[in-house]
Amino acid sequence: MDNELTQSITNNLFTINNLWMMIATALVFIMHLGFASLEAGLTRSKNTVNILFKNSIIPAIGIITYTLIGFNLMYPGEGYAGAFFGLSGLGISTDAAGLTPEYNLGYTYWTDFLFQAMFAATAATIVSGAVAERIKLSSFLLFSTLFVGIIYPMVGMWKWGGGFLDSMDTPFYDFAGSTIVHSVGGWGALTGVIFLGPRIGKYVRNKISPIPGHSMPLAAIGVFLLWLGWFGFNGGSVLSADPGLVSLVLVTTSLAASAGAVAAMISSWLFLKKPDITMVLNGILAGLVGITAGADLMGPVSSVLIGLISGTIVVFSVIFFDKIKIDDPVGALSVHLVCGIFGTLAVGIFGDKAGFNQFLSQLIGVISTAVFVGSATSLIWFIIKKSMGIRVSPEEETEGLDLGEHAMEAYPDFEKVS
Amino acid sequence: MDNELTQSITNNLFTINNLWMMIATALVFIMHLGFASLEAGLTRSKNTVNILFKNSIIPAIGIITYTLIGFNLMYPGEGYAGAFFGLSGLGISTDAAGLTPEYNLGYTYWTDFLFQAMFAATAATIVSGAVAERIKLSSFLLFSTLFVGIIYPMVGMWKWGGGFLDSMDTPFYDFAGSTIVHSVGGWGALTGVIFLGPRIGKYVRNKISPIPGHSMPLAAIGVFLLWLGWFGFNGGSVLSADPGLVSLVLVTTSLAASAGAVAAMISSWLFLKKPDITMVLNGILAGLVGITAGADLMGPVSSVLIGLISGTIVVFSVIFFDKIKIDDPVGALSVHLVCGIFGTLAVGIFGDKAGFNQFLSQLIGVISTAVFVGSATSLIWFIIKKSMGIRVSPEEETEGLDLGEHAMEAYPDFEKVS
Amino acid sequence: MDNELTQSITNNLFTINNLWMMIATALVFIMHLGFASLEAGLTRSKNTVNILFKNSIIPAIGIITYTLIGFNLMYPGEGYAGAFFGLSGLGISTDAAGLTPEYNLGYTYWTDFLFQAMFAATAATIVSGAVAERIKLSSFLLFSTLFVGIIYPMVGMWKWGGGFLDSMDTPFYDFAGSTIVHSVGGWGALTGVIFLGPRIGKYVRNKISPIPGHSMPLAAIGVFLLWLGWFGFNGGSVLSADPGLVSLVLVTTSLAASAGAVAAMISSWLFLKKPDITMVLNGILAGLVGITAGADLMGPVSSVLIGLISGTIVVFSVIFFDKIKIDDPVGALSVHLVCGIFGTLAVGIFGDKAGFNQFLSQLIGVISTAVFVGSATSLIWFIIKKSMGIRVSPEEETEGLDLGEHAMEAYPDFEKVS
Repeated sequence: MDNELTQSITNNLFTINNLWMMIATALVFIMHLGFASLEAGLTRSKNTVNILFKNSIIPAIGIITYTLIGFNLMYPGEGYAGAFFGLSGLGISTDAAGLTPEYNLGYTYWTDFLFQAMFAATAATIVSGAVAERIKLSSFLLFSTLFVGIIYPMVGMWKWGGGFLDSMDTPFYDFAGSTIVHSVGGWGALTGVIFLGPRIGKYVRNKISPIPGHSMPLAAIGVFLLWLGWFGFNGGSVLSADPGLVSLVLVTTSLAASAGAVAAMISSWLFLKKPDITMVLNGILAGLVGITAGADLMGPVSSVLIGLISGTIVVFSVIFFDKIKIDDPVGALSVHLVCGIFGTLAVGIFGDKAGFNQFLSQLIGVISTAVFVGSATSLIWFIIKKSMGIRVSPEEETEGLDLGEHAMEAYPDFEKVS
Repeated sequence: MDNELTQSITNNLFTINNLWMMIATALVFIMHLGFASLEAGLTRSKNTVNILFKNSIIPAIGIITYTLIGFNLMYPGEGYAGAFFGLSGLGISTDAAGLTPEYNLGYTYWTDFLFQAMFAATAATIVSGAVAERIKLSSFLLFSTLFVGIIYPMVGMWKWGGGFLDSMDTPFYDFAGSTIVHSVGGWGALTGVIFLGPRIGKYVRNKISPIPGHSMPLAAIGVFLLWLGWFGFNGGSVLSADPGLVSLVLVTTSLAASAGAVAAMISSWLFLKKPDITMVLNGILAGLVGITAGADLMGPVSSVLIGLISGTIVVFSVIFFDKIKIDDPVGALSVHLVCGIFGTLAVGIFGDKAGFNQFLSQLIGVISTAVFVGSATSLIWFIIKKSMGIRVSPEEETEGLDLGEHAMEAYPDFEKVS
Repeated sequence: MDNELTQSITNNLFTINNLWMMIATALVFIMHLGFASLEAGLTRSKNTVNILFKNSIIPAIGIITYTLIGFNLMYPGEGYAGAFFGLSGLGISTDAAGLTPEYNLGYTYWTDFLFQAMFAATAATIVSGAVAERIKLSSFLLFSTLFVGIIYPMVGMWKWGGGFLDSMDTPFYDFAGSTIVHSVGGWGALTGVIFLGPRIGKYVRNKISPIPGHSMPLAAIGVFLLWLGWFGFNGGSVLSADPGLVSLVLVTTSLAASAGAVAAMISSWLFLKKPDITMVLNGILAGLVGITAGADLMGPVSSVLIGLISGTIVVFSVIFFDKIKIDDPVGALSVHLVCGIFGTLAVGIFGDKAGFNQFLSQLIGVISTAVFVGSATSLIWFIIKKSMGIRVSPEEETEGLDLGEHAMEAYPDFEKVS
């Protein structure tokens, strides 16, 4: 009898844990709407259909490729084949055990797959914003398919699938993916922006012309949805409904986001003379990306400090990239790459794992990712550029990608400022 | 002691199950915002207030009528009175047992009611999009009240309330409502569109003039929220937090949505020459509607196939309805009616219940629904048309329903393209 | 062994309860996006960046000040120092017990903090809408910081922290904050509006000129998100996942919102001649605010009545405030203050606690809040007005606060109606 009771109690815990992981999955899903809104809001209305198209199809492509190969590349498990690359098969399927605590006390096989698939697609979405307003749709779709289907899961495996970053003496630590998700997306974005070059009219005669986004409400909707989604992104990365740990993670996540907003407000007010809404919005995201690597290791004070630093970094990083003529319409590099790196290193500086050895391991993780994703994506972009071309024609860019790529307008009823 | 422990364990499971069902209820609720955004985005800005008005008041009317009569019509239970129609009383109330596992291990009486009430309102919302831009507000409100209060619950009872479709030798199967919700809404939409006729300017001298929607971001927001809501619509239809089954349903739902998007992208690129964002958005919805009848019966491959077929069907269906001059501004007929029928039949073709007898039963369900909802709504539309009128004046239609029905504008600050 | 089993069962219940409270926290968080969208939609496009800025930074400031002092002011607990004011320390932290059922069977210390912090920020957001389109950003930020950091938690303590309203013979009852949150915000808004005066052009030569909001879709998105968030606001106020109580609360909440919408539709159709979308949207909110004080005490009929009354009140209240030249651009006073008072009194009129003594206690709560928040916020507004000024210059107001305060436009791509 006691055995039966114990089993029922375990099953109940399994059901609770799995419930949280499914909800976290839904929250990460909504980040795709967050990215779509944010990127559309921060770019011009003549490219809005194109942005929405990319951000609608990427989750679809991401989920399909993750089904075909990504999940097995990232979590090779028994079929594990080495420190850098492993593949346990193709497709997804499970036996009855995959639906019980035998598989994992935190979730079923199906929940595991879907949560990770939603994560995977976010990495490709990060690229989308940085390369916006001039990339050819077909080229972007090809890149994204390879990026989300192969590059992202390979790097993910290094840590979360038991690869070399996980088996170092002092293992690299990346709780929910400051590096594994955000910097990976960020490096893909950086190489893309370099291969593409800046938008027409952005840097003329060594002057930086701001190109304002067309809808601040859309941008704000995007950032709020991303913060909401981050409750699932970070909170779900606990991989169970553990009350203490998940609630701590939600607190550290919210404190970092809040501090990021405040720091970006102050920095923009002091250095740009006016309190800038796009900086505050990116400050929130900066805090979120910054806390992601160590969201389970920090206390309130460390979380606020990480948020304040991230929110300050992002303002100066946006200015810096503009200075060196790296044209990133939405600030994705500053948010995801720069704050992703900072957040990863912060695990060695603040919180429960702070220490020199940990800092070194974090640095190794950052550098390995930079080298691999930087080279691999450069190669892909290079091949695409040489074969099918990477950029729309100057005429199409000037007229807008909505007409050029889609023969549609996002807002046909309204008069545009010429 | 053991009995007490067993009871506590059961109560915990009840609490978990009920928690999931409440969250699913909230997710289905947010589908109303999804429909509001999608329909507003795919129509012209001069009719936006009217769309928003309808989609704001329908959930309210739906919840109230479901309280008064709908819940008892759809789930007559003890008061059950026959295979086609039954009514167990008026209003909602429960004794203490309704709040315990005695009522149902999956949910309380209140949760049961609210989850089903949120479902009911979606059926009326489906009609709203198809009849947009020319229907009189008062006529629409009267129709919707009858539709959500009586027609929808009657058909729902046939299957979910234990009626004749459920008691056939091979019972009709409709997991979350490809027929019971989506086709029911679709038939009400089709008869409405026929009684109304096309919008002015849509079909002139045998030419089809596209009337583009006024905001693609709104449309995209709508579809993402609908996908999110579908996690509750399908996932909640498990009627408990069963880890294996709910997580499977979320996976099949997401795979079908993704495959629908990809198929619609490819179809529109090949046949319309350009990758069309509205087709991709409707492709997502098509996949969702298609999987809904059998979301718990399919594996990954079947789900992808159902999504691919639905996403292809929707593109050609939109073209077809335009060819035969059935003017549906948002594609609701193609998504909810056509893919609802396909999804229902797919239960007999793919997955755990595939087989000739099942296919026949599915066909019986499809046809019964068509006959009853088609006739009943035709009668209602006919009476409305003859008595109070169904359509606004040509002047009002040309000027826009926002000014005519509401004396307001949706965007008073912006210059419109004349 | 039995002890261990009992402990595991308790831990499971704790995990379920805490899970619901975390989800409720996320739902309350999304109310901030709801307020941002609603307020932006109901005001002019030249002030949209300013609205979004305020509503983005307030949750951040709210969470930070609640961390520093608010949580300890509102829930002094052991450090409790009196009936009107108490403070148990600064900052947030917990020992291991704070993560177990020892702290509370419903949630961990961290969840407790974050749920309450999300509540706190909503109070300041209520002010934001009423004072929109003419308040100086820096003055508003200073006010909000004091309001959310000190005023709100002080009043909250009177009831929820065990203060004098909770220890009366017939304790004041306010389930989720019709008074403690909504009226508190409402009084701060009323004094702010009085100190500010009406917007330029609103009341000219004793005539009321309507100033329509610039985006009805944004307003509708806002209200739907607020309704969604209210599932967490009211449902989370049960402070556990208790199946019967939480599901009842979701039902009463939805019925009141629905009835509020219907009543506002009918009232506006009858008295304003046209069915007004902004009235329906505010009717939903009115119903939600009205049910909030007694959402756990009402049955379906009482909930519908409360919703109908609230939805009627809000229409006439909006007209009334305009008559007496209290200029509230978004109707926040009518929704949060007036319906907050009605909802609080309704606890003495309808439902399980109805009775004369309870009505008196409710009145005492309403009056104490009015007196304290009215005076305290008047003092703050007065000092701000005399020192740094409270209102932007007439030139800036006419040109719009987006250019004046932020040197940005919300929609730079679109032609504005001059």
